Amino acid sequence: MRTLIFILFILGFQVVLAQEKTGEFVDLTYSFSNESVYWVTAREFELEEVAKGETDLGFYYSANNFSTAEHGGTHIDAPIHFAEGAQTVDQIPLENLIGDAVKVNVSDSTLKNPDYLISLKDLQNWEKEHGPIPNGGIVLFQTGFGNYYPNAKKYLGTDKRGPEAVKELHFPGLSAEAAEWLIANRKIKAVGIDTASIDFGQSQDFATHVALMAKNVPAFENVANLDQLPERGFTIIALPMKIKGGSGGPLRIIAIK
Amino acid sequence: MRTLIFILFILGFQVVLAQEKTGEFVDLTYSFSNESVYWVTAREFELEEVAKGETDLGFYYSANNFSTAEHGGTHIDAPIHFAEGAQTVDQIPLENLIGDAVKVNVSDSTLKNPDYLISLKDLQNWEKEHGPIPNGGIVLFQTGFGNYYPNAKKYLGTDKRGPEAVKELHFPGLSAEAAEWLIANRKIKAVGIDTASIDFGQSQDFATHVALMAKNVPAFENVANLDQLPERGFTIIALPMKIKGGSGGPLRIIAIK
Ligand SMILES: [Zn+2]
Ligand SMILES: [Zn+2]
Repeated sequence: MRTLIFILFILGFQVVLAQEKTGEFVDLTYSFSNESVYWVTAREFELEEVAKGETDLGFYYSANNFSTAEHGGTHIDAPIHFAEGAQTVDQIPLENLIGDAVKVNVSDSTLKNPDYLISLKDLQNWEKEHGPIPNGGIVLFQTGFGNYYPNAKKYLGTDKRGPEAVKELHFPGLSAEAAEWLIANRKIKAVGIDTASIDFGQSQDFATHVALMAKNVPAFENVANLDQLPERGFTIIALPMKIKGGSGGPLRIIAIK
Repeated sequence: MRTLIFILFILGFQVVLAQEKTGEFVDLTYSFSNESVYWVTAREFELEEVAKGETDLGFYYSANNFSTAEHGGTHIDAPIHFAEGAQTVDQIPLENLIGDAVKVNVSDSTLKNPDYLISLKDLQNWEKEHGPIPNGGIVLFQTGFGNYYPNAKKYLGTDKRGPEAVKELHFPGLSAEAAEWLIANRKIKAVGIDTASIDFGQSQDFATHVALMAKNVPAFENVANLDQLPERGFTIIALPMKIKGGSGGPLRIIAIK
């Protein structure tokens, strides 16, 4: 089955003209299993089998329980995660989770430096080549580290776990300066990245999280398959598990291109 | 911000002409909390606070863990739940979870009989009034029991828990005959209902689950806010948590009308 979708958004007074799209779905979500990558101090995903097989009543039945930290695998950081009084995951408006998106690929820079910080200069270079980041858009950052998932040693910089592993985290992230510029000048609705955190691994102050979340801008982390997206001209639909009062949670994120 | 969305689907050879929609989102998802309704034998949702407040490093931080059964609150039944070898929740194609949908409202009948079974006749009456259920569509059933959520006594027929409570379950459901007709004649992709199960509360053999899932048709259960939808002319986006090998899981389901 092939689906052709034309989507025309009129956002406020700004008219973004309809783009012809193939309507192809791209799943940007890693599945949850005991291989899922979690923050080194977070409780990992655990599935407990409750039933699997033929029952006494003559039908087949399979069911499980699971436990997990809110923050692991492909997930969302709700603004409350780093900003007191900001939105919990169930309070994020659907309008902030669905819309026109762009991808900024900085893989060349992170290859040379795993502690790379995506800069304002990177955004300006991207706009020179691809035109302005849409106002009210969603911005995804491809660092190339998604290629290493779920190999913790390469993806996080360490396969150790626990508080003492935190200082051994090495992966790229978004600079606070670039985050602030995107909020102030492009009114972005959300950001996403193919690493475990929107701040780089060596961050001590989580300044990018704080900059985003104080302005109620959520972040999608451990986003998969960014290499399958073009630089622009696609729609993101990012629907998190609706945990009352949650600071984040499992996220199913897809693109329509 | 107002959003205007035109969606044009070409599905196989069938052309469904673009409908002008308001682009309004309706969240059909209950939030997860210790009030969420679970099957009487299933492990309920539990949130464990890990951090909440100012850290030594000077920033605010909130994070939680949680545990739950796959089947509780607003969730999806993956085909494997009742059909050996059928799709697990991570294997359900996105194409089956997104698309043109209709709502069949049988609230009048369930008011008189909480054990009401939605019949083939109900579907035929609906089509007489509203035109054919679209081929490859998603069908949602409004029984009116959503008005009782999360009051277990009214919503499930009992507020007892455990195996001995199963026989006290009283709520309406979809008949196996109607399910089979929808699969054979309307090639439906998925079904949804505003009760705890697509089979009625008094079911012993879960014949409707079996009929659907043997054909890889998933079911959305404990769907919220169906009273906010029209009978037809809306799109469903239903994105479950992607649990590897899961028999179901938490579902974020929204409509665009
Ligand atoms: Zn996070
Ligand atoms: Zn279920």
